Amino acid sequence: MPSNYRNFRNSVPWLILCLEAGFIVLFYFLFSDYNELRSIISYPVFQDVSHMVIFGFGFFLTFLKRYGFSSTGFNLLIVVLGVQCSMLTEGVLNFLLQKNHQDVLTRITKAAVSMTAVVISTGPVLGKTNPLQLILMTVVEVIFFRISRWINTTFLQVPDNVSMMHVHLFGAYFGMAVSSKFSQPSPKSEKNASTSNSDLLSMLGTLFLWVFWPSFNAVLTEDGERNAIYNTYFANAASAVTAFMLSVLTTRGGKFRMTDIRSAVLAGGIAVSYTAHSIEHPWIAMILGLLSSVITILGSYFSQRCLNPGLKIHDTSGVHFTFGFPGMLGAIAQVILLVIKNWTNSPRLGYLVMIHIGAFCQTISAALITGFATGLILNLKPFKTIPVSKYFEDQLYWEFPHLAVGF
Amino acid sequence: MPSNYRNFRNSVPWLILCLEAGFIVLFYFLFSDYNELRSIISYPVFQDVSHMVIFGFGFFLTFLKRYGFSSTGFNLLIVVLGVQCSMLTEGVLNFLLQKNHQDVLTRITKAAVSMTAVVISTGPVLGKTNPLQLILMTVVEVIFFRISRWINTTFLQVPDNVSMMHVHLFGAYFGMAVSSKFSQPSPKSEKNASTSNSDLLSMLGTLFLWVFWPSFNAVLTEDGERNAIYNTYFANAASAVTAFMLSVLTTRGGKFRMTDIRSAVLAGGIAVSYTAHSIEHPWIAMILGLLSSVITILGSYFSQRCLNPGLKIHDTSGVHFTFGFPGMLGAIAQVILLVIKNWTNSPRLGYLVMIHIGAFCQTISAALITGFATGLILNLKPFKTIPVSKYFEDQLYWEFPHLAVGF
Amino acid sequence: MPSNYRNFRNSVPWLILCLEAGFIVLFYFLFSDYNELRSIISYPVFQDVSHMVIFGFGFFLTFLKRYGFSSTGFNLLIVVLGVQCSMLTEGVLNFLLQKNHQDVLTRITKAAVSMTAVVISTGPVLGKTNPLQLILMTVVEVIFFRISRWINTTFLQVPDNVSMMHVHLFGAYFGMAVSSKFSQPSPKSEKNASTSNSDLLSMLGTLFLWVFWPSFNAVLTEDGERNAIYNTYFANAASAVTAFMLSVLTTRGGKFRMTDIRSAVLAGGIAVSYTAHSIEHPWIAMILGLLSSVITILGSYFSQRCLNPGLKIHDTSGVHFTFGFPGMLGAIAQVILLVIKNWTNSPRLGYLVMIHIGAFCQTISAALITGFATGLILNLKPFKTIPVSKYFEDQLYWEFPHLAVGF
Repeated sequence: MPSNYRNFRNSVPWLILCLEAGFIVLFYFLFSDYNELRSIISYPVFQDVSHMVIFGFGFFLTFLKRYGFSSTGFNLLIVVLGVQCSMLTEGVLNFLLQKNHQDVLTRITKAAVSMTAVVISTGPVLGKTNPLQLILMTVVEVIFFRISRWINTTFLQVPDNVSMMHVHLFGAYFGMAVSSKFSQPSPKSEKNASTSNSDLLSMLGTLFLWVFWPSFNAVLTEDGERNAIYNTYFANAASAVTAFMLSVLTTRGGKFRMTDIRSAVLAGGIAVSYTAHSIEHPWIAMILGLLSSVITILGSYFSQRCLNPGLKIHDTSGVHFTFGFPGMLGAIAQVILLVIKNWTNSPRLGYLVMIHIGAFCQTISAALITGFATGLILNLKPFKTIPVSKYFEDQLYWEFPHLAVGF
Repeated sequence: MPSNYRNFRNSVPWLILCLEAGFIVLFYFLFSDYNELRSIISYPVFQDVSHMVIFGFGFFLTFLKRYGFSSTGFNLLIVVLGVQCSMLTEGVLNFLLQKNHQDVLTRITKAAVSMTAVVISTGPVLGKTNPLQLILMTVVEVIFFRISRWINTTFLQVPDNVSMMHVHLFGAYFGMAVSSKFSQPSPKSEKNASTSNSDLLSMLGTLFLWVFWPSFNAVLTEDGERNAIYNTYFANAASAVTAFMLSVLTTRGGKFRMTDIRSAVLAGGIAVSYTAHSIEHPWIAMILGLLSSVITILGSYFSQRCLNPGLKIHDTSGVHFTFGFPGMLGAIAQVILLVIKNWTNSPRLGYLVMIHIGAFCQTISAALITGFATGLILNLKPFKTIPVSKYFEDQLYWEFPHLAVGF
Repeated sequence: MPSNYRNFRNSVPWLILCLEAGFIVLFYFLFSDYNELRSIISYPVFQDVSHMVIFGFGFFLTFLKRYGFSSTGFNLLIVVLGVQCSMLTEGVLNFLLQKNHQDVLTRITKAAVSMTAVVISTGPVLGKTNPLQLILMTVVEVIFFRISRWINTTFLQVPDNVSMMHVHLFGAYFGMAVSSKFSQPSPKSEKNASTSNSDLLSMLGTLFLWVFWPSFNAVLTEDGERNAIYNTYFANAASAVTAFMLSVLTTRGGKFRMTDIRSAVLAGGIAVSYTAHSIEHPWIAMILGLLSSVITILGSYFSQRCLNPGLKIHDTSGVHFTFGFPGMLGAIAQVILLVIKNWTNSPRLGYLVMIHIGAFCQTISAALITGFATGLILNLKPFKTIPVSKYFEDQLYWEFPHLAVGF
């Protein structure tokens, strides 16, 4: 192992330094000063989203018993890198397309929302990637997600805030594709497990995400912000209730399973993300929340037993069913609601349905293709893939045991 | 025990499913679409309250060493069920009385505030009720609390926001009454205890509640919102200081006791809940905070030594002195302040005093009576009361030991 | 030890009671009612700051393995005492100087921000002071910090919101000076250490502080509030990235060290605190964030190896490099940015530079002198300094082991 360590010191700091130096230089050219544009985003709602990405997701991922430092620490690292990278990608795109800039708070918020894709993608490879691979994955994914969104908004004319909500699908499938290129841990690995304390900390993160999810769905909507808040609240409530119901039904002893609860309580918020601003009846949001929870828990059962072993993909934090399936349900619901709403206007209807399905397929295929490519690159020799025996282990990256803290 | 487990699977999911299906149907009829009414409640303040109920109380109750999953998990379950149930109860009442609806955010906020009663009521029976009993208790209590409030606002003409603040008293006495019908755990039960880690997580929840309490007291006040914030802050500050003072005085070794701190730091916010919007001098709020903390810690001493053993009531999380006593003090303070304020206007004074005392007595007696009835019903055979030996045990409801999380 | 305990019961409660009684009386005379002034501070931003001081710093300091109760509990105690004390100090000063009062929310916010100085000062003496000493230190420091600010705003005409940002420097050097008068713990003390769980809870507090830091820097700025938010965000992002980079470079095995991360991720926010409202280019904030993180981690290396052993100061939570060094960098940056901005206006420039350097020197020397004096007084016999063998030990102050919680 010593060679591995030495390589770490020789690579990670310099990579971070180059990135940060590059960011500063690019900010100098692309984003030289704060414009005077008035933001439509309220600061407290932005804070909610920032809190979700930094704190909520950080603790959401702490369920592994020996990986708490890395879950929260690396999450902070990739979010702060990714937010800067995402703002610059946006800046480069605006420069190339000669578009006007938006106000600063909107730009930071968009970058934070985009980062959710990366944070979700780290789920399937949680415990399997070293920081070098994580950082590269972050940069690559942020850029590809922006390109995918640009295709959606330009060629398919999907509204910007809807295209942003593809973040869950892109993140989930990108992460799954990357994970497929990593070795699978032994199914008996005793480190790939949680303790009751790590599960409780993960529940802490989950409750945070649950409470703030209405802000997440509403922050970028230009109109219908209030509806987005209400629908997300009702959908989340229905999915939380359903999660408890199905957890008892699907476990052997008729007990609740923490993993199910953690995955499924958020499903409603994800499923209504595309349509939260336009649904006008709470019961629709509730049915969507209920269905999303059903699809998540059944998906969890199905994907852990058949799909993942069949495809030889290991998905540490169950991102496929936590974010992928509800995201898909949301996309389908979006199309169905569109059909119902525009039923009388048939020529426009076909077009609308087509662009939404197109955007949906484009996003998933872009995520899968770029994810596979990224997975392949990350497993090249210079990136020092860690051996399976060292998976899920904080001690590989963090100083232990705990010695005196101050002197 | 296997029969118990089997019964769980056969009952809990179907009960939840029926409730949620019923909720969706009722929402369809009673709350079909979002009205356009402008809300006077600010979204960030609503978020604070939502955060308190879901996250703050969830972790406030995690002090039992083997009951962390149930404390946080079941809290989420009953809150999401109860909020929907509470909104529908309101909707039915509005339909029956032909009253106009309020805006959506106000309705959700009122439902969340009402849920505090249920969350408080789970305190005395924490670790002693199975999910089936908890869910039923939630539905029943939400409905009875709404009826009690309706009596207060209609027949006694108590303002709506004041009647809402009876939530602490109703919750505490309802919970105590329910608890009186459950078997008492053996006083030597080693599971009815905390570890330093579970106490720390409970402190985390308590600090959350402490910080957000001003939002709780201010969210529904129509005028005097600012005063409500300031008075709650000062009262909470004084009660936190006093809690530390009295904890040292009442323990044997002259040390601080975490349970005292946890109970008494919030006493100030509860005691000023009725009067927060109308007190005009910080020193009054501070004196009230000081007194509430005194009454809580002395009450804790008294009720644990004499009252509870005498009445054969077991109160796991000390709800009687944490919420009941400060709530009573608050009700008395409300009357005293009213007398001082309306001293010159003696005819009206008698009337005002009478309605407030009436509302107070009505609330407590309604809580006790409905609580006893609920406790009796919950101990009927179909609800499969858990045996005393299985109290305070996560493993009865949750899958353990922690096996592999993802595949 | 029994004498020690008895003394505790005989001193702490009465001291707290006298203080609180005094506070209430003084509030009666100095701050009798809420004025009608409209606050410029938004309530959600105030809540962020309150949350940081009570919750964020409370958990930031929980890294010691046997000192979690005291870290969070005593933090709450001193904050609530200190906020009241700080408001009264302000009131006395306004009374003496015949100045007008500000609105209530601004006064509470200023008191909460001032309390950060005390919370920071508890860092170096964490685990070494008993509650009696902590309470006295709080009262003394709050008063001296207000006097130091008064000198800065009156004689040096530093704007009020800039003078408030000396809070980090004052807190760090006051705490260091107090700590120099306490016995040093044995370097082999196994209690002066963290466990992975206590480190994770400390990370929880740190992430809270990180997310809310923009609110802290913006809350008191009268104009340029938006800029303060953006600059703090970018500076914090750059310093978090740099923290990870330098942590790998400075540890022996090329691993990350949690202490480094915890100290350095916040450095950016501290370094831009003086200039956050006036910087107009994100890249300047980012460079400042990067430099502050460099200075923190190098300072940590240097001060733990040379400075602290040389000066015989023990700094439990590394306040010197976490808050002191970035604060100094911020003061220097402030002067440099001032020089650049006013380059053409040379007569005024000299004056401006002089007052800022003057304020900076005045703050540090006031902190050091009053800190030494306080340290000397706290070690007098009546304050019952705890023996070195009892350092870092919750059990000295809190009831253990964990017995039944409710009866």
